[in-house]
Amino acid sequence: MTKRNDNDRPVIGIDLGGTKILAAAVDAKGNILGRSKARSVPKGAKDPGPELVAERMAEAVRGAAEKAGLELSKFAAVGASAPGPVDIFTGRVMGAVNLPSWEKPYDLGPDLSEKLGLPVFVDNDVNLGTLGEAEMGAGKGVADLLGIFVGTGIGGGVVLNGKLRRGSRWSAGEIGHMMMSCEGRDADVEFFASRGAISRNMSEAVTRGESPIVKEILRKRGDDRITSGVIRKALKQGDPVTRRILHDAQNGLGLLIASVVNLLDPDMIILGGGLVESLGDSYIDPVRDIAYANFFLRHDREKIRIVRAALGDDAVVLGASVLARQMLAGQVPE
Amino acid sequence: MTKRNDNDRPVIGIDLGGTKILAAAVDAKGNILGRSKARSVPKGAKDPGPELVAERMAEAVRGAAEKAGLELSKFAAVGASAPGPVDIFTGRVMGAVNLPSWEKPYDLGPDLSEKLGLPVFVDNDVNLGTLGEAEMGAGKGVADLLGIFVGTGIGGGVVLNGKLRRGSRWSAGEIGHMMMSCEGRDADVEFFASRGAISRNMSEAVTRGESPIVKEILRKRGDDRITSGVIRKALKQGDPVTRRILHDAQNGLGLLIASVVNLLDPDMIILGGGLVESLGDSYIDPVRDIAYANFFLRHDREKIRIVRAALGDDAVVLGASVLARQMLAGQVPE
Repeated sequence: MTKRNDNDRPVIGIDLGGTKILAAAVDAKGNILGRSKARSVPKGAKDPGPELVAERMAEAVRGAAEKAGLELSKFAAVGASAPGPVDIFTGRVMGAVNLPSWEKPYDLGPDLSEKLGLPVFVDNDVNLGTLGEAEMGAGKGVADLLGIFVGTGIGGGVVLNGKLRRGSRWSAGEIGHMMMSCEGRDADVEFFASRGAISRNMSEAVTRGESPIVKEILRKRGDDRITSGVIRKALKQGDPVTRRILHDAQNGLGLLIASVVNLLDPDMIILGGGLVESLGDSYIDPVRDIAYANFFLRHDREKIRIVRAALGDDAVVLGASVLARQMLAGQVPE
Repeated sequence: MTKRNDNDRPVIGIDLGGTKILAAAVDAKGNILGRSKARSVPKGAKDPGPELVAERMAEAVRGAAEKAGLELSKFAAVGASAPGPVDIFTGRVMGAVNLPSWEKPYDLGPDLSEKLGLPVFVDNDVNLGTLGEAEMGAGKGVADLLGIFVGTGIGGGVVLNGKLRRGSRWSAGEIGHMMMSCEGRDADVEFFASRGAISRNMSEAVTRGESPIVKEILRKRGDDRITSGVIRKALKQGDPVTRRILHDAQNGLGLLIASVVNLLDPDMIILGGGLVESLGDSYIDPVRDIAYANFFLRHDREKIRIVRAALGDDAVVLGASVLARQMLAGQVPE
C-alpha cells in the first residue's frame, strides 16, 4: 500500500465576488466534481465585514464537498480568491473595496484554514482568473500571456515564463489602472473602456435625451441600470448612440492591448469578463483590429494572438484550484 | 599551468548610435580599459548601409583594443548594440530606422564576427542600456526594474527576476510606444513626453510668437534646433512657455511610469537619456511626484524607487559587455 500523494487528491477552489461566492471541488485532472454558491453577505446582515464573509466562504466549501460526495478531510487544500491585493505567503487580504466593511487587511487564509482544518491559499481574483485560463483555458501551453477581464471595472493578470507575476507589493496586473488621456482628461483606462464606463456614458446620453431607443428599453424593464443585457439589446436595435459609445470603449481597450504588447511582447492576450461573455466576438473583433493597428512592431503581428477566454464563470475557481496545487507542490510564487 | 576561463578575459562593448559609435574594452570586473569613438557613417559616404556601418564598428573595436594595450585575440568576445529589434540568437538586426539605408534585416553579428575573429553578440541598444544599469549601475542587486531613456524618442528595457525580457518577437521594452491618448494618430507617449516632443512644441510656440525668450536664445546661437541645452537655458531664464511645455512632458512621463508600475509592480524605475542627463534632478522630481500620485496601490509607494541612471554615456557599452559575458556563460536569454 502506498500513501497517496497530496497532488492526486482533489482540492476546492473559491471565487469570492462582490455579491456571490462560488466554490467548486476539483480533481487532479481539473474536472469539477461538485459546486456550490452563496451570497457573499446575507441581505440585511447587521455586522458585515471579513469575519462574516469568511464564514460564508467556509459554508460554500462544505457545500461543494457535499455535492462532490466527499468528506472535507478527503481534500488536500483550498484555494481562494479575494477582490483586492493579497500577500499570498501569509494569506492576508490587504482590503476588498467592493465588500462592505472590508477596508483593512484581514488574515483570510489563516481564518479559513482554522475553520476548515485544511491548508488554505489565497490570491487576487483576477490573478486567479488569468491563472485558470493560462493553465486550463485559452492559454494552455502558452508561456507569456496577459488576461484582461472587462466588467464594471477592468482587471488583469500577467503570466511570464509560465508564472503568474505578483509584483513587489502584490499588486501587479492592475491593467485597468494604466493611464490614458482622452479629450484632455487624464484617467485610467477603466474610466474609458470598462462596462461601467459604457453604462455611465449611455446613462448620460439618455439623460440628455440623445437615445430614445435606450430610454424605451429601460422603461420597459422598469430599471434604470444599464447592464450588459441592455447594451446588447440597444446594439441589436441599431442604436447609433450605443454603437458610438461602445466603439470609444473598444478603442480604449485596443490601445491598452497595444500598450502592453509594445511593452512586453507576449504570445497571447486573453479577453474575458462580463462584457466579453455578453457581447462575444462582435465585441472582440474591432478591439483586435485597433490593437494590431497600434502595434509598434508590425511584422508577425498575428503571432500575438488576441483571443476570447474559454472558461467563462469557472475561470477563478479553476485558477484557485491551480493555486492550491502549485502551493502544495512547493512552487514558489514570484 | 591552468587555462584561463573565458570569463576572466576582457570583452569589448559597442554602442552603435545614429551618429556615433562608442567602443570600450572592459575587464571582468567591469573596469573600462580603453575606449574609442567613430562616426557611424562617414560624411558624404556614397554607399551608406549596414555593410559600411559594420566596417566602422570593427574599426572602433580595434581602436578600443589598441587603447587598452591588448591584442584583439586577448578578448573573449564582443557585445554590440543596434538601434532596432535584434534576434539575439542569430545576431540579426531587423532594421535600424535612424541609420541610412538600413531598413531591411542584416546579419550584423555574423558579419562582425567574421571581420574580428571573435564571438559577437548583438542586442537592442536600450535593452543593453537597461542591462548595464541593472548589473553595474543604479539597479545593482535589484530584481525587477524598468529603464526609461528619454531623448529624441523614448526607449526602455524591462528586467524581471534579474533577467532582461526580450519578448516573443524581440520587441519587448518599446515603452515609448505605449499609447497615451485616444485621439489622433500619434498617440504614443513618445509623441507627448520625449525631448523631441518638447522641441517640437517649443518650435511651434516660437513660430506663433509666444516665446520671445526662446526666440532670442535661438537667434544668438544662429541655429533653429531646440536642443537640451536650449531647453535648459530657457528654463534658467524663467521662460513660462518652456516651463509649461516641459510640465506637460513631465506629466506624460509620470503617467507612463504609473502605468507600468500598476501593470508590473517592479522594485525600481531608472530614468536616463539625454534629457535626464541635461536637466537632472529638477526634471526628475516632478515626474516622480506625478507618478506616485497615479499609483493605483498607494501603500508602500516609496518602496518603488524612481531614480536617475548612474552610468551616463557608458550604460550601453557596459551593458553590451554584460551581454557578451552572459552569452559566453551560456545564460539563455528569455
